[in-house]
This record gives sequence, C-alpha cells and structure tokens, in this order.
Amino acid sequence: MKVIKNPPVSEWNSICKRATFDKNNLTETVATILEEVKLNKDKALIQYTALFDKVKLSSLEVTKEEISEAKNLISKELKEAIQLAKSNIEIFHNSQKEQEVKVETTAGVTCWRKSVAIEKVGLYIPGGTAPLFSTILMLGIPAKIAGCKEIVLCTPPNKKGAINPAILYTASLVGVTKIFKVGGAQAIAAMGYGTETIPNVYKILGPGNQYVTKAKELIQQEGIAIDMPAGPSEVLVIADETSNPKFVAADLLSQAEHGVDSQVVLLTTNEEVVASINVELESQLNLLARKEIALKALENSFSVSLNSIEECIQFSNKYAPEHLIIASEKASIYIDKITNAGSVFLGNYSCESAGDYASGTNHTLPTNGYAKNYSGVSLDSFIKKITFQEVTKQGIQNIGNAIELMAEAEGLQAHKNAVTVRLNEINN
Amino acid sequence: MKVIKNPPVSEWNSICKRATFDKNNLTETVATILEEVKLNKDKALIQYTALFDKVKLSSLEVTKEEISEAKNLISKELKEAIQLAKSNIEIFHNSQKEQEVKVETTAGVTCWRKSVAIEKVGLYIPGGTAPLFSTILMLGIPAKIAGCKEIVLCTPPNKKGAINPAILYTASLVGVTKIFKVGGAQAIAAMGYGTETIPNVYKILGPGNQYVTKAKELIQQEGIAIDMPAGPSEVLVIADETSNPKFVAADLLSQAEHGVDSQVVLLTTNEEVVASINVELESQLNLLARKEIALKALENSFSVSLNSIEECIQFSNKYAPEHLIIASEKASIYIDKITNAGSVFLGNYSCESAGDYASGTNHTLPTNGYAKNYSGVSLDSFIKKITFQEVTKQGIQNIGNAIELMAEAEGLQAHKNAVTVRLNEINN
Repeated sequence: MKVIKNPPVSEWNSICKRATFDKNNLTETVATILEEVKLNKDKALIQYTALFDKVKLSSLEVTKEEISEAKNLISKELKEAIQLAKSNIEIFHNSQKEQEVKVETTAGVTCWRKSVAIEKVGLYIPGGTAPLFSTILMLGIPAKIAGCKEIVLCTPPNKKGAINPAILYTASLVGVTKIFKVGGAQAIAAMGYGTETIPNVYKILGPGNQYVTKAKELIQQEGIAIDMPAGPSEVLVIADETSNPKFVAADLLSQAEHGVDSQVVLLTTNEEVVASINVELESQLNLLARKEIALKALENSFSVSLNSIEECIQFSNKYAPEHLIIASEKASIYIDKITNAGSVFLGNYSCESAGDYASGTNHTLPTNGYAKNYSGVSLDSFIKKITFQEVTKQGIQNIGNAIELMAEAEGLQAHKNAVTVRLNEINN
Repeated sequence: MKVIKNPPVSEWNSICKRATFDKNNLTETVATILEEVKLNKDKALIQYTALFDKVKLSSLEVTKEEISEAKNLISKELKEAIQLAKSNIEIFHNSQKEQEVKVETTAGVTCWRKSVAIEKVGLYIPGGTAPLFSTILMLGIPAKIAGCKEIVLCTPPNKKGAINPAILYTASLVGVTKIFKVGGAQAIAAMGYGTETIPNVYKILGPGNQYVTKAKELIQQEGIAIDMPAGPSEVLVIADETSNPKFVAADLLSQAEHGVDSQVVLLTTNEEVVASINVELESQLNLLARKEIALKALENSFSVSLNSIEECIQFSNKYAPEHLIIASEKASIYIDKITNAGSVFLGNYSCESAGDYASGTNHTLPTNGYAKNYSGVSLDSFIKKITFQEVTKQGIQNIGNAIELMAEAEGLQAHKNAVTVRLNEINN
C-alpha cells in the first residue's frame, strides 16, 4: 500500500482518481453478441454458452427438479444463515416503503404520487470462482417486496451444465420466477430483447464482468433501465487512535480479496495506527486462500495521513467510496458530514462483511466515485412513482389564469386553450 | 387521426409501438462535438455557438446586469403567474421529503438511509420557438429543495447573443447559481466535462432535441447521471359518455402542438363521443397558430374503441403514456388499475396544461413507453440515499456466525475473517 502523508487539497482530486482499464474492442465485441441474440434468440444463446461456458445445453431453463435437488445439497446451517440474512434484508427493505402523501397545492388542486412495481425485472448473477448467492438476496428480496410480477434470473452454467446449488436454493427462496442457464453479455441481451424461452424485462440489475457491464450500458440506450454503472469494488476506512488495527486490517483484506482491481484506501490521523495495521495486514494476508488476488489489489491501494477526522471525511467525500468504514468509537458524531458514499459502517464492530451479507442493508452499491450521483440498490430500484392530480372546477378557477399566461408566454396557444374552454364553460 | 375499432389484444403491442426515427450518423456527429469540447473547452463552445446559433460570443456566462434587465422586461401578471406555479411546485416537491427511518433488523444491528443532495447538477433548457421557462421551475425547484449547491443552467442564445428574459427571470427566481449561453450537444459536453468557465456537474437534466438527447446518452456512459432517456411527448386520453368533447379535443391539441412527432391517443368505449371530439378537433385546430405542427402530429395519432374503461386502462398500461388523462366523472375509481404512466390527470377539469405549468406536479416525464421502468423527475432526482449501519458487540454476536457461513460458502475467506477477528476479541 502506497503511503501518502498530508497531501495538499489541490492534489486530492488526482489521488482520488480510479484506475482506468483498456476497453479496446469491447464495445464492438459486445454489440455483436447483442445483435446476434436479438436475431437468433435461443439458438444464439445455446451457441454462446457452448463457446464461452464450454457446455452444450439442450434446454436453458432450470427445472423444478434441479431446484428441489439443490435444496438437498445445502447444509442446514447454511440454510439458517441465509434465512437470517433474508429476514434482516426484508426488515430493512420493508422500512423503505413510502406512505402516499396527498397535498392540496391550491384549493381544488390535489397532487400525489403512487409507487408501482416495475412489472418485469431481470437479475444477473455472475458465475466464476465465487457463487454469489448473497447478491440474489440483495436483488430478489426488494423485487419481491416491490411487487414485481416477473423476476427472471440469469447465471452461467458450469462445464457440466449445472448451477451452484446455493444459487438455486436462494433464488427459489426469495421468489425468483424463472432461472436460466445463461451468462455474460448474451444473458443481458436475452433479458433485454426476450427470446423464445426467456421473457424480456424492463430493468436489468446485478454485477458482472466487463462484458456484462458493457452489455448493460449498450442495452440501456435501447430504453431498458439498469441499476447503475459499474466499476471495481472498493472500501475506504477512516481509522483513529480508537480503532482496532486487527479489525481494520481484516476489513481492508475483505475488500482486497474481491479482485485484483479492487481498491482499498486507509485514511488516518495517527501514524502509529497505520504501522500497526500494516503489521496486521502482513500476518493476516499470509493465511488467505485468495492471497495472490489480495496482494495485487493492495498494490493499487494507498493510505493517506491527514490532520483530523474532519479532514478525512472531506477527503472521503471527494473519493466517494462504495463502502465507508469509520473505525472509530466516535464514528456517529461524523454522520452529518458525510455527503458521498454508498454504504457507511459506523464503529469498530460494523465490518463491511456485515453489510455484504446480513445486516439488512443492500450490498449493490455505486463504485468508481458514482456515489456522488447514484444510490445503491433499494426498494426504489424496483418501482416507479406515478404522479396523480385531481383538479376540480374550483381548482381550475384558481390556477387557470396563471396557466393561460404562462402558456401564452411560451407560445403554446393550444395549452392555453385547454384551460380557456374549461373556464368559459364554468363561467357560462 | 386513425380510427381502430376493438382490436384483439394480440394486436395491442404493435399498436402501442412508437415511431422510430432515423438516427444515421447522429452518434458520430455528437461524439465529435463531445470530444472537441473535452479538448478545447470554452474555445470549442464559442466556435460551436458561432456555427449553430449564428452568434459570436465574447463571454459565455450571463451577467448580473443581464438578469436585472430581464426582470424589468417581464410583465407583473406573468411574474405573478410564475410565482403561483412556483408555490404549487414547491408545496408538492416539499411533500416528497422522506423521513429517516431507523430499524433494528436484529438486536444490536441498526440500519437506515439518509437523503443527501447531489452536490452539482446541470439543467438544460432548449431554445427554439418556445422559451421553456416552465421547465426551469420543474428542474430548479426540486434541485433547490434537495439542497444542491451548484445548479448550472445552459440554454442557447439567440442571434443577438441574448437569452429570453422569461428564462433569465425564472432561473434567477428559483436560485440557479450560474447561467451560460450555450446550447445543443456542446452544452451537455460542457456540463459533463467542465470548461474554464463552466463547472462540471454530476447529473444533467432537461429536455432537448435529438443531438442533446444523444449527448446525454453518450455522456451517461462516462459516469455522469442523466434524468431519463427521452422521446417525443405524448398524451393518452380515456373518454366515456361523461367526458366533455370540447375539453378532450383541447387536451389532444395541447399535446399535438408540441411537435410534429408528438403522439396523441384517444381510447373510448363510446363512438358518439369520438365523433363529437372529432368535430371539436377540427374547429379548434383552425384557430391555432401552431396548426401545421398539430396537424402533422395528429397524422401519427389514433383513436381506439374498446369495450370498457377497464379495457382502456389495460391498453393504456401497455402503451405506458407520458400523460394519461381519464376524462371521466368516474376517473378516481380506476386509480388502482393504473400501472404504467408518467403523470395522471383525473376528471374533466384536470387538463394536461395544469400539470405542464402550475398544479404542482413535475412535467419532466418518461416518454416513449419508458413509464414502464422510469419515474418522472421529482425530489428523488436530485438526491442519493446513503445507507448506514451500526453494529454493536451484541449485534455482531447475533449475526456473525451467519456471515461466516455465507462468506465461506461463497469462497470469500477474508470476508469471514473480518467477523472472526471480532468474535474472537469479544470472546476473549
């Protein structure tokens, strides 16, 4: 981890810059896959799955038998753990339901909003080394609470054409309506355009590699909504003399093991703490199975010494981290100063892992500085809010003249006339 | 207007399809403008303004003197009308503030969300025939209520290098922090990348022509958020025997005058009503200054006869209109059946113009069927929600084991270890 001591504010922007990755030919490659799936549908999916996942499937949809079988393959302990996480995530996302507020803006003019579920949503769950069943909880639970009718899940099969049982178990538990064995950009295309077996959806959510991310970006331009733009995962930890170096090191490593492109940032007012954390980092690192990945990630990472926790928060707001851990006993006094972050962990016992799995908060969060302008996934991600207005005779009499004047000033005579015909009728 | 009688449900999808427009070369043209502004900043803006707006500017920012002058050019009546609209829009958007809800998901695990303003936003207001100062109210007021610190507005100057005084007056009234004389794709680029005089922003909102729309689409891929994808404006009116044909015709025309690509749709259970509306359409059309535009728009438009109001709502949900007018005395009984619409107008006195200007609802709404997956602009558009969690010793003891099990099952050992080190410390 690179160490930066008391950098002047003028250098903060450049320190906060994320690494950019070479995306040569990515757009072209992905656009070709999208086009191919749009045209040849299931046939293209079968072909791409043979090519990329090395398995020739006869059918894309996961069967009821496969799901029942998966349930038997999961230990009782893991099932209970998933149930506990599900319960907490449900409690928090249920608390995000909004009351309908009706307001009379002028006598006779009543306005309100109604939250309505997006009817059909698609969830993408990557394959690879780690079967991310926790992400199914994070996406499926709010989709279900919102009331989405169709919740489609796509995830790549292994070389035997199977899906990890924890994924099947969790998907079934949260009420996913259909599960398909398809991954990569071709899965995004399938959910965006629809095929003979995979229904098209109105919004696609979930993490993925650069092909998946690019496919989501491209399909968004065709009117299909996506959760948010994506980048490598990251954590920023603010530590002071009340931090526990062992805990901080463990938190930094839990982020670093995600991928070689993960970034961890340590801000502190206390150089002794940094030294202790570094000692801990080294000893804990050696015990990790994913040591090589974590080591690479740490190479992209840095610590910054600053003069006060307030200054650390200011730096963090500029960095806009996906995860912000304030590893201090005094964490809660800084809450109001935080303006840009995805999810915040307060105090020494709030580890990022808690939010990743089971505290109840969502772990699908804005990376790459997008916490400046995007929220993480929440119940809001699965609904849209329709506005309503009811204008009575009295109402149009109260606001009609203002509308006529404004419409006229904008040169929109027919807009004005829609009011005039009503006022005339009332006055006659 | 094309008349379609009782189409089978199997044909609804194709009836609901919006016209697509030829966008050849658009991406390339706009990408060049973005690149040029990124590289040459203000110099590029001055050049594009000379090229497209036919005026050579010496300075891009509107001065305080220009704003004071504008105030004197607006009539007292129009000022009062704008003030009334502002007050209603403020009341409705203030009602969208959310209470912070803290929940204890498990004993010792507390989660909540905090709404924080997006620090810097950019508003785009088109030039052209109609000076859309009403859109400044719709974007500037919620931005101000949200607490955005920098609210930048870009709008193209006329050939004399001036901005319409109603635009300057309204921008100053709602608290826009800086106004710039720049339009088109180059304005989007300027707000996205920043130039010597125009600050970069984190989110760009506002309507525009196809160049502006494409520029927003492209810049979104660089991590700058936008309000929503855009398409031509549209209204769907459901009329029954309790409708007033004169009002319905006026509402259809108020939409049709927007542009030749606007679409108006009439659904009804009553053929006599259609006949009366058509008679009214013809007589009102002849009185309009923008008759030619409205006439062209009506050519893209259609009416559909259906068997019941319920069926009309079902059709409307498939169409997902930007504006839905239920021109019926019984409108309110159908509210719960509406699943896809931008803004809904209930009853005979709730004309679309009311929502366009002064009822209090926002007029920046999803078009082109995007009401299926997008909300209109609201206070939500100017904030992001940061999640917080505070896990106590007791909390991590309650959920720690579940996290360990799940992290292990996902193959993420360091995630597990972040919990283990804490549990070990507590137990020692």
